[in-house]
Amino acid sequence: MSAIKTASNTSAPTKFIEANNHSYAYRRFGNGSAPPLLCLQHFTGTLDNWDPAVSDPLASGREVVLFDNAGIGRSSGEVPQTVAEMAGHAMAFLDALRLERCDVLGFSLGGMIAQHMAKDRPSIIRRMILVGTAPRGGDDIMHLEKPSLAEHLRDPRNSGYSVLQKIFFAPTTTSQAAGEAFIARLMQRKDDREPPSGPNVAEAQITAFREWERVTGDRFADLRGVRHPTLVVQGFHDEMIPVRNSYWLAENLPNATLLVYPDAAHGSLFQYPESFTRHAATFLSSDSHPGVL
Amino acid sequence: MSAIKTASNTSAPTKFIEANNHSYAYRRFGNGSAPPLLCLQHFTGTLDNWDPAVSDPLASGREVVLFDNAGIGRSSGEVPQTVAEMAGHAMAFLDALRLERCDVLGFSLGGMIAQHMAKDRPSIIRRMILVGTAPRGGDDIMHLEKPSLAEHLRDPRNSGYSVLQKIFFAPTTTSQAAGEAFIARLMQRKDDREPPSGPNVAEAQITAFREWERVTGDRFADLRGVRHPTLVVQGFHDEMIPVRNSYWLAENLPNATLLVYPDAAHGSLFQYPESFTRHAATFLSSDSHPGVL
Repeated sequence: MSAIKTASNTSAPTKFIEANNHSYAYRRFGNGSAPPLLCLQHFTGTLDNWDPAVSDPLASGREVVLFDNAGIGRSSGEVPQTVAEMAGHAMAFLDALRLERCDVLGFSLGGMIAQHMAKDRPSIIRRMILVGTAPRGGDDIMHLEKPSLAEHLRDPRNSGYSVLQKIFFAPTTTSQAAGEAFIARLMQRKDDREPPSGPNVAEAQITAFREWERVTGDRFADLRGVRHPTLVVQGFHDEMIPVRNSYWLAENLPNATLLVYPDAAHGSLFQYPESFTRHAATFLSSDSHPGVL
Repeated sequence: MSAIKTASNTSAPTKFIEANNHSYAYRRFGNGSAPPLLCLQHFTGTLDNWDPAVSDPLASGREVVLFDNAGIGRSSGEVPQTVAEMAGHAMAFLDALRLERCDVLGFSLGGMIAQHMAKDRPSIIRRMILVGTAPRGGDDIMHLEKPSLAEHLRDPRNSGYSVLQKIFFAPTTTSQAAGEAFIARLMQRKDDREPPSGPNVAEAQITAFREWERVTGDRFADLRGVRHPTLVVQGFHDEMIPVRNSYWLAENLPNATLLVYPDAAHGSLFQYPESFTRHAATFLSSDSHPGVL
């Protein structure tokens, strides 16, 4: 009974581990025979931003490991200004946990970190799920000054999580209703919550996005060497990281399946948690070599 | 026992129905409570080109109806030179069967016919699965004169079905092996086979592709009024109808999910029949309004 209750991001205790001269905050819950699933979070997101409707179903069948990168939530240190350094922190964290091989769910910024890890140390990752993210050299990545995003970010009515409903979900009745349900699920956790990210976090991560947008060498060529079976997921109406970035990712990763949802924006995984977790679990359980869903 | 045996495109008898001053050849097998699934075939394809590994699993749960359009196989009449006329034949055929509402699986040319039917008579279709196809005004549709296709079509070693292995599958060892298995499955049917399509079929259908490529009015705007839940499926390496056509389709259809397979070309559904039929059956069984897989 208590095992079931704690296999949830609504109730799992926050833990800390020392490594790399940092103290990293994380949550680890669930069980099963599959490799643990490391979850890497979006821009300014903390452990508390993982929707239990996504994390909890995945925790039956495997351990789910939620991770705050350096300087996020209660993890110590400075927020890095490059994806490469963030990937370094994630790998140091896995080393500290003695996890030699895991699956990765990377959402948005987390998807960029996952890609970097897959290149830096291919053996540490078995399968990847990349949601709402972009390859290095992608296009129109997290330009919050765009009118379609700025109007929500500057609106004083959008305090706290409510801005996520506006920018993670499409401007339709159905998608906004799903966004409202998502926010309510994030609020289910009452105790042991993370401090929200401040402007310094946003500033450093935006710097990292600008660096990630830079094309280096033959555009997207580096993806062709990433052989990990990968599931790329996106919503068609993402203004934060437009869907063409997912096209480029999945076209150039040799073993990637692409799944794009209707009526959805950046937070497609949180809009359709039943569908997303069903596909994610199927994909993670499969032994097909190309990443066929 | 005999019911199980005949619920297969390897053994189902070819039937004929008179309507619209034509005699249409078809096969109908399987059963279940879901609406029948009308299957609309590719360029020059006949009833015998439906892979039993795709048609048969879908026939548990619903009736599968395979259809030869006018002038194809043993259906009488001339092959139309427009998708619009082909859609007219398909609807006359459904009327003759007294099927007022069905699901549609349209592959390649068949996907164009399905789109036309959905606009002409929305009520006749409940859900659509569009594989390896393009919207009206799409790009680079079935240009068989392209070197990447012409080299296979002109190669005298590629007689009969073996050309399909080359042009429906990617030029990799894994995809070509899947293509070989596909051809072997098509050959399992021994009796009551269709005559192969001749040059007159190809010529008329190519004329229809050229007409379908023409942009009329605001490009893709007509798709926004097609509200049917739709699953769009494609392989990343399709030289016959490149994947960008599936992007446009699914971006503009308001209720479409997009699924794109790795290491696959035009015949993605035949390369991954287990995955494709699993997703198709899930999609057809769902009652979600946007076409969420």
